[in-house]
Amino acid sequence: MISGGVKAGYVRPLDIKNGRIDLTHGSGGRAMAQLIDQLFRPALGNDILAQGNDGATFALPPGRVVMATDSHVVSPLFFPGGDIGALAVHGTVNDVAVMGAKPIYLAASFILEEGFPLAELKRIVESMGAAARAAGVAVVTGDTKVVEQGKGDGVFITTTGVGVVPDGVEVGGDRARPGDVVLVSGHIGDHGMAIMSLRESLAFVSEIQSDSAALHGLVAEVLAAGGVGVRVLRDPTRGGLATTLNEIAGQSGVGMMLDEASIPVRPQVEAACEFLGLDPLYVANEGKLVVVVAPEAADAVLAALRAHELGRDAARIGTVYEDANRFVQMTTRFGGRRIVDWLTGDQLPRIC
Amino acid sequence: MISGGVKAGYVRPLDIKNGRIDLTHGSGGRAMAQLIDQLFRPALGNDILAQGNDGATFALPPGRVVMATDSHVVSPLFFPGGDIGALAVHGTVNDVAVMGAKPIYLAASFILEEGFPLAELKRIVESMGAAARAAGVAVVTGDTKVVEQGKGDGVFITTTGVGVVPDGVEVGGDRARPGDVVLVSGHIGDHGMAIMSLRESLAFVSEIQSDSAALHGLVAEVLAAGGVGVRVLRDPTRGGLATTLNEIAGQSGVGMMLDEASIPVRPQVEAACEFLGLDPLYVANEGKLVVVVAPEAADAVLAALRAHELGRDAARIGTVYEDANRFVQMTTRFGGRRIVDWLTGDQLPRIC
Repeated sequence: MISGGVKAGYVRPLDIKNGRIDLTHGSGGRAMAQLIDQLFRPALGNDILAQGNDGATFALPPGRVVMATDSHVVSPLFFPGGDIGALAVHGTVNDVAVMGAKPIYLAASFILEEGFPLAELKRIVESMGAAARAAGVAVVTGDTKVVEQGKGDGVFITTTGVGVVPDGVEVGGDRARPGDVVLVSGHIGDHGMAIMSLRESLAFVSEIQSDSAALHGLVAEVLAAGGVGVRVLRDPTRGGLATTLNEIAGQSGVGMMLDEASIPVRPQVEAACEFLGLDPLYVANEGKLVVVVAPEAADAVLAALRAHELGRDAARIGTVYEDANRFVQMTTRFGGRRIVDWLTGDQLPRIC
Repeated sequence: MISGGVKAGYVRPLDIKNGRIDLTHGSGGRAMAQLIDQLFRPALGNDILAQGNDGATFALPPGRVVMATDSHVVSPLFFPGGDIGALAVHGTVNDVAVMGAKPIYLAASFILEEGFPLAELKRIVESMGAAARAAGVAVVTGDTKVVEQGKGDGVFITTTGVGVVPDGVEVGGDRARPGDVVLVSGHIGDHGMAIMSLRESLAFVSEIQSDSAALHGLVAEVLAAGGVGVRVLRDPTRGGLATTLNEIAGQSGVGMMLDEASIPVRPQVEAACEFLGLDPLYVANEGKLVVVVAPEAADAVLAALRAHELGRDAARIGTVYEDANRFVQMTTRFGGRRIVDWLTGDQLPRIC
């Protein structure tokens, strides 16, 4: 995100109220510098971003470094409980946090469609700034590109985060062991169904709020309570809880047995899913944490989850067992048993 | 870039020859895992990426960390001298390198349009892998999203790089001082005019090749030759040489005086620019380096540039002087003098 401090006397301020993005805002010239100076920098501002170089320079505390990246293409851009700006912060903060790291810095890159209203962009970037401050991370570098009308869809935001893993923390998708306990931090499917019920105008269900939230604080509490007993941390986003558990089973070479009755799902999410023919197990979350934990640490970690605002409805939902087939299975509410397979189709496009 | 090692027996291989991207490839389910396992991982493969977690974990050598990000939306995707895959590596490697850092790791995030041919995606990702290996960087984490046909344009790639600044290196856009010398590493405008002559089907000029290249090696030679005399490094991409110099003048609070006759421009670039009514000073480069250097180190740095394959045509093009107006001026070939202003319009959309 470069701009050289446009010279005084030359500049008509951006018309943020009525203006729209045009191709000059991506050209690298004065219009782009203005957009950065008058819209991005006030919303995201910090000392490192203000240096105005081609990248950011900073020191990191000692420890292993974690880097994660996510492009955000959610549609619609604004939804109950969030917007693409906050989501782009939460998504990447969470990817860094579930690696066991404390997220510290973010890079943010915008692909804007010609004609997009500056007022909406401002709202999105301000939401991003607020989410970053709340998560204790700084957006220290960025980029802006503009594509012609019809070659994009309003705004796409790619965020990349770096963080550092404190000494002694060892988590990873390949560390689940037979006997481990599977926990989830709360109700599943909220984010995906908030988006879908907006898209499908489901008026009969009461409004579903996205759970979009930064999980770094919850992760810190889990690690403090469970220590080396914490094996795997994941945020079950695209593909939902089912896909995340299948990924862990695959990486660790184990099976899992879930108990359907213990998996928290809000009644309005259940109703909306039923209406649309969806299974909440496959619906995206943006503020939930899956924890695989050694049995001796499970109670302490569950208590730590429940003591945190974002984990009040945490539940123990299953156990890990030995299985060369790496199946995720579930005891249903009716006492049957079924395989919870990978998502094969595209349940929910552009959910994040 | 997560995938859990899809279970054996379930998977029909991707039809890379005739297949196309569909929305399932961005769903987080099995189709996405396949795309990662069969297309991305073989092309980009390295041990860190292979871990298959939500992010990458690595150690960094001691020193200040640099992070830079760039979204790439170039159109067309393939052009003489490169493609969006190689460009996405070079663009970010260069942003890290011009901060004085050795680039080490990249994150890559793809926004794919439904219907995009898998064969073209493979070609792009393989080009990316080759460019990364040549630049000595590893793509250690990533993401893939898919948007509906008509909501994107084939492929957009956002890359984010991290690197480390060796001790003793101090460069920055605010360090130019009156008396310093301005160098450029070679002919300007090649990348922009390669794209434009393709778009405009300029058959009368001989083919112009993009200069897309990774500059980390050239930067290392410059720093070795110039030491603390090297004040500013920049790669003049969007907005071209003129915009980059205006940015430096703005950040450093100085003026610059260029000598038009000394600025290297290839005859076919000059011809194409003239035909299209463009000024090569504003045309993007993707493999050129601007160096602002203390006068006593200028000769050594120029010699170092010329000794490197990517700097054979390097030239001394101007000097820095005191100017509260921060003007970039130029002595023209005809002995006149003009102000080289910021680019105000959009000369070349989607050039990178």
